[in-house]
Amino acid sequence: MTSREPKQDRSRATRQRLLEATIDCLATQGWDATTVTAAAQRAGVSRGAAQHHFPAREDLITAALEHMFDARMAEIRAEGTRLPDGPGRTEAVVTRVVDYFTGDLFKAALQVWTAAAADPALRERIVPLEAKFGRTVHQVAIEMLGADDTDPTTRRLVQATLDMARGLGLADVLTDDSPRRKNIVAQWAKTLDDALPDPR
Amino acid sequence: MTSREPKQDRSRATRQRLLEATIDCLATQGWDATTVTAAAQRAGVSRGAAQHHFPAREDLITAALEHMFDARMAEIRAEGTRLPDGPGRTEAVVTRVVDYFTGDLFKAALQVWTAAAADPALRERIVPLEAKFGRTVHQVAIEMLGADDTDPTTRRLVQATLDMARGLGLADVLTDDSPRRKNIVAQWAKTLDDALPDPR
Repeated sequence: MTSREPKQDRSRATRQRLLEATIDCLATQGWDATTVTAAAQRAGVSRGAAQHHFPAREDLITAALEHMFDARMAEIRAEGTRLPDGPGRTEAVVTRVVDYFTGDLFKAALQVWTAAAADPALRERIVPLEAKFGRTVHQVAIEMLGADDTDPTTRRLVQATLDMARGLGLADVLTDDSPRRKNIVAQWAKTLDDALPDPR
Repeated sequence: MTSREPKQDRSRATRQRLLEATIDCLATQGWDATTVTAAAQRAGVSRGAAQHHFPAREDLITAALEHMFDARMAEIRAEGTRLPDGPGRTEAVVTRVVDYFTGDLFKAALQVWTAAAADPALRERIVPLEAKFGRTVHQVAIEMLGADDTDPTTRRLVQATLDMARGLGLADVLTDDSPRRKNIVAQWAKTLDDALPDPR
């Protein structure tokens, strides 16, 4: 162990706290309120340390979205390996995917997407991130369902499932939509099971 | 005809232009930029006249959303009566509903919903509007599909269709998603037709 490691560890921990605080701040306080200073305060980090890691607000926000997205996808993939096969698996998978779209990370991303709609410079930074997120969630859903992505019907049904999950996410932003959502997810999983070509 | 009518007509036309300009401004310039002054300028109306109609920004924005929503729903209902029965009707209905969620009115509403997520006073005004919009779109979709809303499966499938349409709307905010969307709508219409109980 060299003497540099503890300092590197501290720096990594500071960075991690800042990224988490940024998502939290976006989801609860919105786009306008999420500055480097506000995130530093929420993370219990000095403004100077925060600006050392992230000189500009856009750097902090895109890093936070990407880091937290990668972490969530790794979690969902790990959960997927623990789900039992057979009846109920499709509903369990759709539930996991919908959980992602109704969580704080989605609410944070929504603030950024919506700000980018009216800000061409921000839009240019966010469009590649949106494409990456879309591709990855699709890939994770295909893997978890054990579905054949080369079949056009399967591909479109999985995409429709993700669009439905995204719509459920948006329906949960102002009010708790979970009681309605539960029934929709169960119905969708049944319909998806009937519609996906066999054998998977 | 009394002498008051032309003045009332002018006032109504001014109000209409302001409401349209507000939706346009929200969809393209975003929440922060959409002030009474900005909408007045876009509508070619004096600031004084705009403030006579709408003293506060929130009054203008909620009036614009509600007025334009009612107008769009009336249009969709009228289109519905002209759609032929038989094969292809479900896809035509889903297409109309998705068109609503991918239009400027949805993009304007998204700006307001997202701002309301971080603003408790605004949220209180928007939640009843969201509930009204949700009920009405559901009712319109049921009517256009000729579906039986008392059947729980039907009810959930129509709700899921609206959630999917909302998700497609969100996927269209930063980039033109129409080529992908077309295939998803066609696939889902087919799946919905197979899944809805007969006879309708």
